[in-house]
Amino acid sequence: MDTILVAGGAGFIGSHLCRALSDAGHRVICLDNLQTARPSNLKLLEDLPNFTFVEADIVNALPASVTDAPNLTRIYNCACAASPPQYQADPEHTMLTNVVGTNHLLRLAEKTGARFLLTSTSEVYGDPEVHPQVEGYRGWVSCTGPRACYDEGKRAAEAMTFDFARMSRAEVRVARIFNTYGPHMHPDDGRVVSNLICQALTGRDITVHGDGTQTRSFCYVSDMVRGLMALMESDIDGTEPVNIGNPDEFTINELLDMVLELVPNAGKVVNTPLPQDDPRRRRPDISRARDVLDWSPRVPLSEGLPMTAEWFAEEVGAEMSVREAAE
Amino acid sequence: MDTILVAGGAGFIGSHLCRALSDAGHRVICLDNLQTARPSNLKLLEDLPNFTFVEADIVNALPASVTDAPNLTRIYNCACAASPPQYQADPEHTMLTNVVGTNHLLRLAEKTGARFLLTSTSEVYGDPEVHPQVEGYRGWVSCTGPRACYDEGKRAAEAMTFDFARMSRAEVRVARIFNTYGPHMHPDDGRVVSNLICQALTGRDITVHGDGTQTRSFCYVSDMVRGLMALMESDIDGTEPVNIGNPDEFTINELLDMVLELVPNAGKVVNTPLPQDDPRRRRPDISRARDVLDWSPRVPLSEGLPMTAEWFAEEVGAEMSVREAAE
Repeated sequence: MDTILVAGGAGFIGSHLCRALSDAGHRVICLDNLQTARPSNLKLLEDLPNFTFVEADIVNALPASVTDAPNLTRIYNCACAASPPQYQADPEHTMLTNVVGTNHLLRLAEKTGARFLLTSTSEVYGDPEVHPQVEGYRGWVSCTGPRACYDEGKRAAEAMTFDFARMSRAEVRVARIFNTYGPHMHPDDGRVVSNLICQALTGRDITVHGDGTQTRSFCYVSDMVRGLMALMESDIDGTEPVNIGNPDEFTINELLDMVLELVPNAGKVVNTPLPQDDPRRRRPDISRARDVLDWSPRVPLSEGLPMTAEWFAEEVGAEMSVREAAE
Repeated sequence: MDTILVAGGAGFIGSHLCRALSDAGHRVICLDNLQTARPSNLKLLEDLPNFTFVEADIVNALPASVTDAPNLTRIYNCACAASPPQYQADPEHTMLTNVVGTNHLLRLAEKTGARFLLTSTSEVYGDPEVHPQVEGYRGWVSCTGPRACYDEGKRAAEAMTFDFARMSRAEVRVARIFNTYGPHMHPDDGRVVSNLICQALTGRDITVHGDGTQTRSFCYVSDMVRGLMALMESDIDGTEPVNIGNPDEFTINELLDMVLELVPNAGKVVNTPLPQDDPRRRRPDISRARDVLDWSPRVPLSEGLPMTAEWFAEEVGAEMSVREAAE
């Protein structure tokens, strides 16, 4: 039986990935510093067969339980706080997680021969002038602003990952993941889907940054996990990043309307100032993923949003019930 | 007497900076791993009063001789190989020098209260679509290519530096330095001024990348050092980078003609393919430096190039003499 390491495996996407890899018959080591992970995510994983949780921070030297794992064949790096309030709380740590943490995992890949996958981000495109975003677009990123610790950290992590490939030190894959949502998100992670749903469910004011005409595209987490696994197992040239996301584009106001329809007794909507360097538009061009991975998303927002709201309703203990996901 | 730390102080710009700071009456610690430094640069410094050389790599924990230095008031970070052949030889180390090395120096600044200056680079603009480059331009940088270890490393270093300022952890200054030339360059550093002069002096083929119509602007090293010191001592808001460079723009062919006029018996010119991601144009907008630092370059290429060629002629032991700099 081979072993797969998932750094950040107790996080939102990481926990879904751990489960899917376990279901596919692999031994899974989940490495996480529990910085932003929800303890309940971990509880859902702990009973999986051949599952090990290791609490450690990839910024530090990796523990022997990880470096000495038998038959390590794959390393997924999903480790980094991904929502602005979380990654801006300790920007130094965010940068080091991306650069030093990725370096530690790449060196482990080099030592063991395991293939390495970096979950990079659509944030490498910054506030894009090209729409939708293709992988060849170099981005419009401020390297001096408050989002730079994450955006530039991921760009630096990509640079280092591709250098390991160019030097034949490791087999690598780089996914640029776009907005993802679904069960197991942190209710307080500050991202728009969780924000709107949780605010609606708890009757608080619903905050919309700016006038709500900025757009995002939302990928349901099961599609994302399927995409990451397809990329990891693909034969794609390891020096090319691949966008993974859902190209259906919605304004924040459209998303809000869908949430309000699911949660009828929500509070009032309050428009707040746009955060600095907030992107106006964001939508992946997934031609490469379609061509090379034969992957495309299957779950539209109209299906994924009710499933997510159901889960949040249970999670935050909201008394009001959301419309059935199966409707 | 206060102490000033110059990381990378045995390098090209660093060695000139050490001398200028010593001449201005400071105790100077030169920290260098001697990766690309010329030993002769160090010999020129060793007899300066109150000068200390410490051989260490900023990627590792800083030695006590640095961290315990008395009355440390300023830290200049000039440490990183800056020419593509040098920084691409070990891209992992280039990235770590910029991110981990800068982090170590910033933490020292935080601990001691010393002001920190990062020598960033015009490379953060990549292959620019905006000309000349203003500090607000976000750049056109490939984060996947062979120059990314340097370009993205510097962008990440800037991000981290500005985060230390935003969190009030350190007083910072960030200079984006453009092509600089002068005595003490490494003859083999692979940059265009040293390449053309040394090839001409030694009668080898003179290699010009592409058709030579790409442009660069060249700052004489004394102007650069004066600019860095002015920026360090200025009251500029520490969350803004400042371009330091010479805005006089030349095509590589124009530079070549000037070199050929200085070195009459040079070999033949050979055009070679443009390196990947080589910028087509590069010229600083120095309005901010003029306004805030009251700085602008004083040495035109027509004066600086003969002084540089004279020095190289002595350095490489070329028998042919160059035209007198004072002509």
